[in-house]
Order: sequence, then structure tokens, then C-alpha cells
Amino acid sequence: MFQVSIIGSGNVAHHLIKFFNHSEAFELKQVFARRYDAVSEMINPYQYINNIDQLHEVDALIICISDDFIEKISHDIQLKNTLILHTSGGQSIDVLSNHQHAGVLYPLQTFSKNKRVNLENIPLCIESKNQEDLDLLHAISSKISSQIYEVTSEQRKILHLSAVFVCNFANHLYQIGETLCEANQLPFELLVPLIEETANKVKYLSPKVAQTGPAIRGDIKTMQKHLDLLEQVKHKELYTLFSKMIKDNEL
Amino acid sequence: MFQVSIIGSGNVAHHLIKFFNHSEAFELKQVFARRYDAVSEMINPYQYINNIDQLHEVDALIICISDDFIEKISHDIQLKNTLILHTSGGQSIDVLSNHQHAGVLYPLQTFSKNKRVNLENIPLCIESKNQEDLDLLHAISSKISSQIYEVTSEQRKILHLSAVFVCNFANHLYQIGETLCEANQLPFELLVPLIEETANKVKYLSPKVAQTGPAIRGDIKTMQKHLDLLEQVKHKELYTLFSKMIKDNEL
Repeated sequence: MFQVSIIGSGNVAHHLIKFFNHSEAFELKQVFARRYDAVSEMINPYQYINNIDQLHEVDALIICISDDFIEKISHDIQLKNTLILHTSGGQSIDVLSNHQHAGVLYPLQTFSKNKRVNLENIPLCIESKNQEDLDLLHAISSKISSQIYEVTSEQRKILHLSAVFVCNFANHLYQIGETLCEANQLPFELLVPLIEETANKVKYLSPKVAQTGPAIRGDIKTMQKHLDLLEQVKHKELYTLFSKMIKDNEL
Repeated sequence: MFQVSIIGSGNVAHHLIKFFNHSEAFELKQVFARRYDAVSEMINPYQYINNIDQLHEVDALIICISDDFIEKISHDIQLKNTLILHTSGGQSIDVLSNHQHAGVLYPLQTFSKNKRVNLENIPLCIESKNQEDLDLLHAISSKISSQIYEVTSEQRKILHLSAVFVCNFANHLYQIGETLCEANQLPFELLVPLIEETANKVKYLSPKVAQTGPAIRGDIKTMQKHLDLLEQVKHKELYTLFSKMIKDNEL
């Protein structure tokens, strides 16, 4: 059984805390958060600390806070034998360089507090500079997920950037679909099977091969009609930019 | 059992032909296509015609061809008692106005020939101007899918436009993710669980509520880093446009 502690109370912290508290492979020792009420529903009072000096040595301490504060809090951590991890896609492992045992455990997924996810299927991107720490990181990760990838800090930045495209931006496209439907008395649920199938296709076909629609067909008439239907300038701008990119990318 | 015929050999025709030939609720009478080899693997020779005048009266004739040619072919069809349908999202029912019995059967889904889909779960958007034809259209549609929606031509155009955003443009975002991964020796499969979860979320959370990432957080540092990492001008342009839209749409 691994002893772990967590710093943070955001979306990633939330899902990890719940997982560790229910996993037989882990004992969640301590959770550091500024406010108790942010974590009170998930942990017991004795697990909570709000003073960084109260941290005990454990197998791994996982920092799940905003990118900007990781390096700062890392310097406040006085543990010597604990593997110190952060979970950020955008931060190098070097922000933890004041620790002898440091690493990264980046779960490549979108987390919302009110939506359950199965950590088992989430790719965990891990990194550590020495073999002993990497071995421990592998051992810990494999108790969380079945998909473990060793990834450098540089590659991790690219994954984080890619995630913004395939997750945040895709989600914004769904929001545009919802807005268009609502403005025309159509239930958004009509679009859901299409959204699911489009995502599902990438398991079987490269997105380049899977592309359909007026832009890839070069159907200028339909594209012009669509631009006329759009009311918001930014929607028109997005439509034009995407159509051009899809057309130029033709196989 | 309904007797149906199909005009066309594209993606939609392909999936409907296969469905009708395997469904006990339908008899696929005839398929009109310019070239036999486009449909030869799916039908028997006696079902094939390449002369529009050879069409027999059936319960419904389904036109599955490019938008630009629907009106033209409609004028060539001499059937009197058959319900004439098209499957286009972008065309009004009026392109079939030379027929007494006309309607629309628009499957809101993305079809690729080499990817199976379960028609049962696909929303069918139907429209007809008289009740008798609408009743028949309901009866036929309900043997194909469990999700039937009556939708006007104007609403259908909006759905078609929305589909371009949530399907074609989302798929292009996946392609950008694939490109970024490949350029950095990362397997695209790393992004697949994220793509699936992002799509899956819309069943439980409105996209507006589900949004995560640097833009909604207003994390300017990360956004600047991402822009620096991007090499293609169009990718930078897209990143800036989306980030601005997501920020402005804040709840």
C-alpha cells in the first residue's frame, strides 16, 4: 500500500482524493488546502492540514494546484524522502528542482467536479529524472490507470496544447451548436449522437480520412448559405477559417 | 413491409442500402446509380437501374445525392403515387415541389463508407406538407431509428449548419491534435480518451458549464506559451479566436 498526500482542492485534486480514499492500494495521509470546506465532503478532519510544515513524509506528495503556484509551494515543502510530484501539463519537471525526489504525473483528461470519470482509462504521462523515482512512479501510476506513458517535459507541453484543441476548443464548438439550436427551438440532444460518433470515429479512422461535410467536398454553395445563416461575426470568422483549413488539408 | 427505392451511391445511400437489404421491415426494390460498380457489392443485379424511367412505384423513393442535383433529378422522376424523399440537411422540401407526395428524411449523422453506424440511434429529422405523407414518413422512419423529430426546412438548415461545427470542425481539431502529436513522436492514441470524454460530457453537462482549460481560467501565461509552441500561422489564428470566444462567453 502506498501512502500519498495531496496539495490542492481543484478538479484534479478532487478526483484523486476520491480515488485514493476508495482504493485499497493507497492510503491518503494528508490533504493540504487553504479552506477546509473545499475538501470537507471528501476527507476526514484528521486528514486535513492548512499549514505546509505539517506535511509528513509519505511515498508521494502530489501537488495539484494552478501552474503559477507550483514552483512557489515546492520551495515551501521541507520533505526529504518523499517523491514530490506535480500534475501539470504545462510545467516542466524543473519547477520541482529543489527536491531530490521529483517527478510529474500528468493525467491527460478533462475533469469537472460534478462529472465522474474512470481514472483506470486515463493516460497518465509520467516523468522523473532518476530511475529509482521513475520506478516508484510507475508502481504508483499502475495502481491508478492501465495507460502509463513516459513523456518528457517538452512532449508534455505539446500534449497539453493538443488537449486545448481537442477538448476545450471542441467543447466550444459544441456550445456554438447548442446556441444555434436554442435560438431555433431545437433540442440540443439532436446533436448528441453526431458529437459522439464524430469522437468515436477517431478510434477507427484517422481524422484526416474521417473528414466529411461541405468544406472537404468543396461545396461552395452550401458554405455560402451557412455563412448567411450565421449571425455572429466570430462564428462567421471561425466558419471561414476552418473551411479554408479543411480544404487546404485535402488528402 | 415497406417497398423502397434509392437514388444515389454516396455515403448516405451506402448505409441505407445496407440497412434496407438486411431489414425485415423493408424490401429494397431498386437502386439508381450512374455506375454499377459503385453499388455492386451491396445489391443484386436485378435491383440496379441506370435509367430513371425504369423506376417502379414503391412506398418511398429516397434521393441520396449531392444537394445541387436533387431538384434536377426530381423533375426527371415520373412516379405519381410514390412518396419522394430527399435526405439533405441543406435543401428545402420545396426542391421536390413537382411531386404530390414529397418529404424529407434527414439523418443527422456523419457517414463514412468504411465505418459502420447503428441507424437505430441516429436522429431522423422528417418533414412533409400533408398529413397522410407525414404519417407514412413516421411509419417508415420508426422502422429505421428510435429517434424521430419533426423539423421544418428552416430548422433543418440550422441543424445542418450546427453539424458542421460539432462534427466537421471538431474533427479538424482532432486532426490538428494528431499533427501536433506526430511532429513530436507522441502516439495520437494518447488523446483518444480525452476526445471521448469531452464528447461524452455533453450528455450530462451543458458545454457552457463543462468548459475547462486556460482560456476559461483566464490563464494568460499558458495561452502565450501555447501560441509560442504553435508553428503554423492558421493554428495560432484559431487558438487566438477560440480563446477570445471562450473568455467572452464566461458564465
